[in-house]
Amino acid sequence: MAQQGFAAVDVIRAKRDGGALTDEQVDWVIDAYTRGEVAEEQMSALLMAIFLNGMTPPEIARWTSAMIGSGIRLDLSTVGRPTVDKHSTGGVGDKISLPLAPLVAACGAAVPQLSGRGLGHTGGTLDKMESIAGWNPLLSATSMTAQLAQVGAVICAASADLAPADRKLYALRDVTSTVESIPMIAASIMSKKIAEGTDALVLDVKVGSGAFMKDRESARRLARTMVELGAAHGVSTTALLTDMSVPLGLAVGNAVEVAESLEVLAGGGPADVVELTLALATEMVALAGLDADPAEVLASGRAMDRWRAMVSAQGGDPDAPLPAPKHTRVVTAESSGVVTGMDALAVGTAAWRLGAGRARKEDAVQYAAGLLCRAKPGDAVNAGDPLFELHTDTPERFDAAIAELAGAVTIGATAAERPGIVLETVRG
Amino acid sequence: MAQQGFAAVDVIRAKRDGGALTDEQVDWVIDAYTRGEVAEEQMSALLMAIFLNGMTPPEIARWTSAMIGSGIRLDLSTVGRPTVDKHSTGGVGDKISLPLAPLVAACGAAVPQLSGRGLGHTGGTLDKMESIAGWNPLLSATSMTAQLAQVGAVICAASADLAPADRKLYALRDVTSTVESIPMIAASIMSKKIAEGTDALVLDVKVGSGAFMKDRESARRLARTMVELGAAHGVSTTALLTDMSVPLGLAVGNAVEVAESLEVLAGGGPADVVELTLALATEMVALAGLDADPAEVLASGRAMDRWRAMVSAQGGDPDAPLPAPKHTRVVTAESSGVVTGMDALAVGTAAWRLGAGRARKEDAVQYAAGLLCRAKPGDAVNAGDPLFELHTDTPERFDAAIAELAGAVTIGATAAERPGIVLETVRG
Repeated sequence: MAQQGFAAVDVIRAKRDGGALTDEQVDWVIDAYTRGEVAEEQMSALLMAIFLNGMTPPEIARWTSAMIGSGIRLDLSTVGRPTVDKHSTGGVGDKISLPLAPLVAACGAAVPQLSGRGLGHTGGTLDKMESIAGWNPLLSATSMTAQLAQVGAVICAASADLAPADRKLYALRDVTSTVESIPMIAASIMSKKIAEGTDALVLDVKVGSGAFMKDRESARRLARTMVELGAAHGVSTTALLTDMSVPLGLAVGNAVEVAESLEVLAGGGPADVVELTLALATEMVALAGLDADPAEVLASGRAMDRWRAMVSAQGGDPDAPLPAPKHTRVVTAESSGVVTGMDALAVGTAAWRLGAGRARKEDAVQYAAGLLCRAKPGDAVNAGDPLFELHTDTPERFDAAIAELAGAVTIGATAAERPGIVLETVRG
Repeated sequence: MAQQGFAAVDVIRAKRDGGALTDEQVDWVIDAYTRGEVAEEQMSALLMAIFLNGMTPPEIARWTSAMIGSGIRLDLSTVGRPTVDKHSTGGVGDKISLPLAPLVAACGAAVPQLSGRGLGHTGGTLDKMESIAGWNPLLSATSMTAQLAQVGAVICAASADLAPADRKLYALRDVTSTVESIPMIAASIMSKKIAEGTDALVLDVKVGSGAFMKDRESARRLARTMVELGAAHGVSTTALLTDMSVPLGLAVGNAVEVAESLEVLAGGGPADVVELTLALATEMVALAGLDADPAEVLASGRAMDRWRAMVSAQGGDPDAPLPAPKHTRVVTAESSGVVTGMDALAVGTAAWRLGAGRARKEDAVQYAAGLLCRAKPGDAVNAGDPLFELHTDTPERFDAAIAELAGAVTIGATAAERPGIVLETVRG
């Protein structure tokens, strides 16, 4: 029995039996777990009970607050600009943070983009940025705040004192099949983003085969839950539901995604990447209370200037050539027609198998690994035309990647018109 | 990924999503958990998913087989008599094993009563027996078999090589609030009893406030599940559902329950204890294929002879005086009338608070602690008459026990007629 009068077994039993946890129970269990008083096996039983029995909105809000309270909450008030961040639930080819952060900075806001590494089929922003020679993801809070004031954008690793309970919980959920719980996903994302100190937040909630949320209704529930959590903690939050049934852009991997981001910053790049970058930037600029037009700013080249400043401020050389793969191979179309579908999960998994991602936290990634889509849904192809260009430093990986891609592309007579990438907007 | 091609996360996910585990998944997860390859936090997530999503009868049967297979199964074929055991799901004042084992031995069967210690409000058979000077609960398999052949009855601790998976799982369930799951309770009880090697088994499934199963329907489901598990493993099994809304007999504790058991063996004792002992003995004798009449055998004094032989064979002195408490206190009736109810859970908890039970496995029990009921439902009392006589060696415990007993006894104008103690019989 803890000093506060709770025992882990009673908290687990309450949730197991379908009840709502009290504020005091939530505060206690998060704190006691962070301190190691509640054992891993007790927390995992509670997580499974939450997974299966759910949490009420007040419980989720309190759980999130308790996770924020397990560490420090950054104070970005000295930055001198409105702060606004973006978080994506993760998708295949999702390099949007790279052009977006400097673009929104160029619009007058400050973007504190604390990011993670990839695990599984979705890549990590830090892994992509590290393909830039010399770039350093580790900043102190002081350096980060200074860079935000000077450059207006930072992409760096979250420090261990932001929501440490979430870090511990995430590792536990990963090994106990309790990841895909909407309350837990919402609390995990929002505790980190709120602790990072941003004034406003735009969420990119992916829907489709390449995303966590495979269906629109689940994605909408997750989006609403997070928007409410933001509001409850004084962070203006908007969520966009966006399509992740096909990969975003043409590049999937690390260095290849940086290259594609540079194309966008230079005024080119794939239409879907540009469309989503501008849609997110527009929401961010609005939440920051600025009246800049992101499309105009992007066309002006000022976003590219911010990118170069941002990379340089963290030791990176924006002019250094990106790593090139030691081996490439092309996968071709077996029939002629129009590409009618491309399975994002299969493409993401293929890139992962080529070495772009990691199976375990301690694995290293290959910066040059990944793939380029040579056709996307809507494009006409002839049998023998290239569909994918695969990149790796370790050619023994080709076979597994090619196996993943078998059946990933469907070719038919006519392609259905593809809807816009933004499916829906959820506002506070 | 294990050699067999399973990963704990996949097994957890299958059960989490409401599916049935395959035979191969069950075998793998029990074996891998016993070996420490599946972590405690993974098994606890699986246990909670099983708790909430249930298991099918084939899953429960396979789970039980896998737990048996985690250790050895005793061979009692050399005993030379039919073997038959009894298991109770635990109740307040449940000392039935003590008179029952020698009674059934005197009827011609061999009773391999492997028992446990008490935790919480229900006492443990080994704790009770240890109040007999010199009695030793630890026997090798060879000594146990020899005693069964010679005396026909043994009460001893289960060795660590019987169903070791259950031992590990039980400790985990205890700290993760996953104890009260019918599939898990059934598999736990039956794996141990089947591993002990008995030919036949009678189950005493308690129903009521002092029992695990508070309602008749749950008790019936548990009974049916266990009877089916017995049949599936070649052990003829019958279950009696018996009333545990009031304590069994007048004595609740350790030495006081031994004393009451001796009264029964001597031909006296409370009517409900005698009734239940004979009911269970009748079923056991029938399953063993013997035609002795337990009531006649009890009256003949031959059961008492077997008791003395059984205690002596394990180093106990059947003539040694039982431990007496250092302090006693009487709780009296506040009004006059007829006792209409007595809450078994409150009485069991009071005995536990007096020192008869333990809060943690490593605690010691007081052999002289416990209580005697001085009135039972149906008895007339006057205000000021004794209701309970409390026993302890540590008088600072009286207040907590008296607090537990507040409201435990209801006194009214007329008592409802009490039904027989056996509510229902479930046969294979």
